[in-house]
Amino acid sequence: MQVIGVTGLPGSGKSIVARVAKNMDVNIIRMGDVIRDEAIKRNAEIGETAVKLREEYGDYVVAERCVELIKEHSNDENAECELKFIIEGIRSPYEVKIFKKNFKTFKIIAIHSSPKTRFSRLKRRKREDDSSNVAEFKKRDNRELKFGIGNVIATSDYMIVNEGPVWKFKNSIRNILKNEVKKH
Amino acid sequence: MQVIGVTGLPGSGKSIVARVAKNMDVNIIRMGDVIRDEAIKRNAEIGETAVKLREEYGDYVVAERCVELIKEHSNDENAECELKFIIEGIRSPYEVKIFKKNFKTFKIIAIHSSPKTRFSRLKRRKREDDSSNVAEFKKRDNRELKFGIGNVIATSDYMIVNEGPVWKFKNSIRNILKNEVKKH
Repeated sequence: MQVIGVTGLPGSGKSIVARVAKNMDVNIIRMGDVIRDEAIKRNAEIGETAVKLREEYGDYVVAERCVELIKEHSNDENAECELKFIIEGIRSPYEVKIFKKNFKTFKIIAIHSSPKTRFSRLKRRKREDDSSNVAEFKKRDNRELKFGIGNVIATSDYMIVNEGPVWKFKNSIRNILKNEVKKH
Repeated sequence: MQVIGVTGLPGSGKSIVARVAKNMDVNIIRMGDVIRDEAIKRNAEIGETAVKLREEYGDYVVAERCVELIKEHSNDENAECELKFIIEGIRSPYEVKIFKKNFKTFKIIAIHSSPKTRFSRLKRRKREDDSSNVAEFKKRDNRELKFGIGNVIATSDYMIVNEGPVWKFKNSIRNILKNEVKKH
């Protein structure tokens, strides 16, 4: 079994990694989905659930839930089947620690785009939680940096620069995933 | 005048950037040299000087000295001459703030290599302050990360991946420097 974490600041292109991986039969675990699923179970709001989950189970509950999810998954399937997992949205060095403890060959792929590129992407995309002005953009970056995402990015096993074109970015993702799958 | 900062964890290849830049008539300012020069002036040890300088002038004395150096330099020369500077060894977001305040078009180039690659380089290189065992290597990384270098790397304007071959790395450096010089 191979588990790979994906990290990057908002607008860097993390979701494209998940899309490419899905086409390669890799299972995708989104850290955000763990909270969303729990919110549905509790019939509560997402923001409220995120806070409560941490109060009840500590800061690393989301990472720990991801580990459980992957372990359940791998019990379900045929033992002969080579399972691969991508965890999208890793933000803190402590999360990395938890994943490394549970999955011996755990690797991190970081995606980098310049602040200028990320800002213009987020502006174009305008998801509900995306930032459309510079102050908001910086605030959002700082929120992520406070979790320690900068350290996760700086010490990643792979770094993909995503400044376009998208086919080049997708090729880099495919090459890394193929390389990681071959090794295990 | 264009000023570009270079950042990267130990063993990533920062000094190659300086070497390439020198061949392109770019002036190199090494943050470490500022302390070394001051130590010679004071006839004191480097480590001791680093501590004393900070005690006397605050945490950002090295960045501020670099700014002074660059400003002196640019007064010396012919005003028509397009001066370019590389500052090697930027580690903290506060240093970036100081440089951005003083040089309007200031840009950061980050160099990334995987921890595995950096460790084997440092082991091969064995400079006095380089780490030859994993614990020492991690300790040194953590010392840099505590300064906030992860945030500087994650939010850099350019990211160069240096996993070899060296000619490819040098080409990337040249392209970025040419691009930055053209713009200003």
